[in-house]
Parts: sequence; structure tokens; C-alpha cells
Amino acid sequence: MKKETRISNAVIRRLPRYRRYLRELQKKGIKKISSNEFSILIGYTASQIRQDLNNFGGFGQQGYGYNVDDLYNEISAILGLDKKYRMVIAGAGNLGRAIANYTSYYKSGFLVEGIFETNTELIGEKIHDVEVMDYEGMVEFIEKKHIDIGIICTGKNSAQEVADKMCFAGVRGIWNFAPLDLEVPGHVALEQVHLSDSLHALAYHMNKKE
Amino acid sequence: MKKETRISNAVIRRLPRYRRYLRELQKKGIKKISSNEFSILIGYTASQIRQDLNNFGGFGQQGYGYNVDDLYNEISAILGLDKKYRMVIAGAGNLGRAIANYTSYYKSGFLVEGIFETNTELIGEKIHDVEVMDYEGMVEFIEKKHIDIGIICTGKNSAQEVADKMCFAGVRGIWNFAPLDLEVPGHVALEQVHLSDSLHALAYHMNKKE
Repeated sequence: MKKETRISNAVIRRLPRYRRYLRELQKKGIKKISSNEFSILIGYTASQIRQDLNNFGGFGQQGYGYNVDDLYNEISAILGLDKKYRMVIAGAGNLGRAIANYTSYYKSGFLVEGIFETNTELIGEKIHDVEVMDYEGMVEFIEKKHIDIGIICTGKNSAQEVADKMCFAGVRGIWNFAPLDLEVPGHVALEQVHLSDSLHALAYHMNKKE
Repeated sequence: MKKETRISNAVIRRLPRYRRYLRELQKKGIKKISSNEFSILIGYTASQIRQDLNNFGGFGQQGYGYNVDDLYNEISAILGLDKKYRMVIAGAGNLGRAIANYTSYYKSGFLVEGIFETNTELIGEKIHDVEVMDYEGMVEFIEKKHIDIGIICTGKNSAQEVADKMCFAGVRGIWNFAPLDLEVPGHVALEQVHLSDSLHALAYHMNKKE
């Protein structure tokens, strides 16, 4: 079903959004949707939607539209969301806690197995049933538990060192919230969340509106 | 200096990144940089860089490159970062606290003036010198203090109502962390941070690496 051609990053970025809207349709019991209806809902043009979804072999049928369940499942599979991911968080401050809450709330395939911290006052605490452990034990924990993803919620200064340790220990992906661009080995996927970039884009759009 | 033509969203999204790297160069005392050197640093092609920066009238000079300070200042001005923004946060949970810490850390022009909460146990607390106040008073506070940006760190279910109140009270921008796509009036700028979209993109790239 999947065409394994190179799919542009821009399309990949849009897939989670398609998936979220399809989930909302599922919840309302809607079984099929045309690209025009989908366009009104999601805010992309119908032609953009057809083009995006054609990347994956094209799910739509002329005059019928898209089967909501099928499309949801296919996009989930393309994104790899039919699998489970074991994760650790470095940093048990507000951001680390917020991320732990967030992923726990979703009860999806992304499971936080441990939170690591250097602040001894926080070690031993539980955040949503997940224990805060001594940062010294992180590498061993990642190796033993076959952790897939390392989430970095530390300050800027320690983030690269934490990432190095996580990669050394064998994670396949880094989700970085520290405000710098990390360097990771080529076989490790990296997703950087720069909150300030988002705030700066907001400022731009506010000024444009005037 | 600024060409006020339509600049694509993709270019806008890259500007904060250019700015971050220019800031790093400034810190190292570097005064000028060629598009080729910039390309190695930032990871875009030199031609992409030239194209992006040409959108704003072109700062580079053939054979000289870009003046780091000028380019930094111009990009800051384009993004509107030479202005001050007064902000309020709705929700004093871990995420609200993390955002308050984050913006306070940066000491940029984005100032959190108040945090609003319905949980009476949190009201009266101070987070980085910012008071947590009763959510009931948010509209009046926004009006009186001429708040520019409302930051939504509430749960999904109350987020649209909170956004409606913020827009009614007169904010010009909404920075939304609640996991749904909000609707706001046309004159209000909206920036949605979907953390799950970022995590899903990471999952995709991890699976691609295999």
C-alpha cells in the first residue's frame, strides 16, 4: 500500500494534523469524507489534500471520497504510530513534568518509563506512576529497558551532554525541548521543539495583521 | 528596507532559526559570514539562504557576505522582536509554569504580566514574580493592562472558551498549547503548538532510519 518514495518533510509535518481531524470525524461516527469537505474542515485546499494523500498511493475514490477509518489507520501506520515506543525524560522540572503528564494523558503508544534528574530533592518522587531516578543511572536504564526515545527537558547547558549519553546508550530518537540545536549521530532521529521560534512567528503574524 | 510583499509561511518559519544562529555568531564576535559558511552552520543550502534573505530586500553583498549584526537586527525587526509584548497565561499547571519560566529566562520583549487559574489552591502563588490570579478576573485584567498575547495552557475542554474570552478582552495573538485547533476572529493571530504532531514526526523519522 505504501509507496516508499521520498516524501517531503512538509507533507510529513501535515500528516499528524490530518490524523487528528480524522480522529475527530471518527468520534462523530462519520465514515467517509470528500476532499472538498475535508478542505473546509482542515483549512488546506482540496487539491493540496489530494496531492498530499496521493503520496501514499491515494486512498480516495472518485465520487466517493475518503474512507475515514482506512485513512486514519493508514496515516497512523505511515507515521509508525501502530508501534510502541519506550521513552525516558531527562529533567524533572516543570517542563519534564508537563511532558510526562501530556504523554500519560494520551495513553498512546508512547510510554514514559523513567524520569532522570540530578537534583537529589526530586529523586524518588513519582510523576504519574513514573519514578524520578538519579541521572547517574540513565545510561544503564536505557540499555537495559531498550528505550527508544530520549526526551530532553534539561537546561541549555547540559542538553548536548545528555543527548550524547542517550545516543551512546542506544536511543533511536531524541525529542529536544532545550533551546539549542543538538548534534546527534546519523542513525538517530532528532526532533527539536523551539518554543521561541513559535512565539516569534506569532509576533510576526500579529504585526502583519495591523 | 523591508519589501512588504507576501512572504511564504515556510520562510517566516525559518527566520527565527536564522536569528538564533546569528545570535550565536554575535556571541563569538563574528562580524560577517558568507552564505556558504552560513549554510554549513545552519544546514540549509547556500542557495536557499540567499533566496530566503532576498525576500527582505537582500542584505548580502557579492564577495562580502552578510553583516551579522545588521542581518540579526533586520530579522528581529521583521519578526517584530524590536517591540514589547504583554502576555497572560491561562493555566498554572506544569505547562503554564514551564512557559512562565521559559519566557522569564529569555528576558526578551515578551513579558508575562499575570497567570490565571480556576484552582483556588494555586491562586495567590507567585511564579517568577508573576502572581497567579483568579480566572474570573482575566478579562478585566487583559482590558486594563492592554495585554497583547494570551497563552493557553489549560486542558483541551476549556481552551476554546478561554480563547474566546481572551479575544473578547482584546488580545492580538493567541499562543495555544492545548491539543486542539482553536478558532479565533480574523484580526487575531494564532499560533498552535501541537506537541503530539512533533512526537509523531519523530516516530516517522525513526522508522525511516531503519
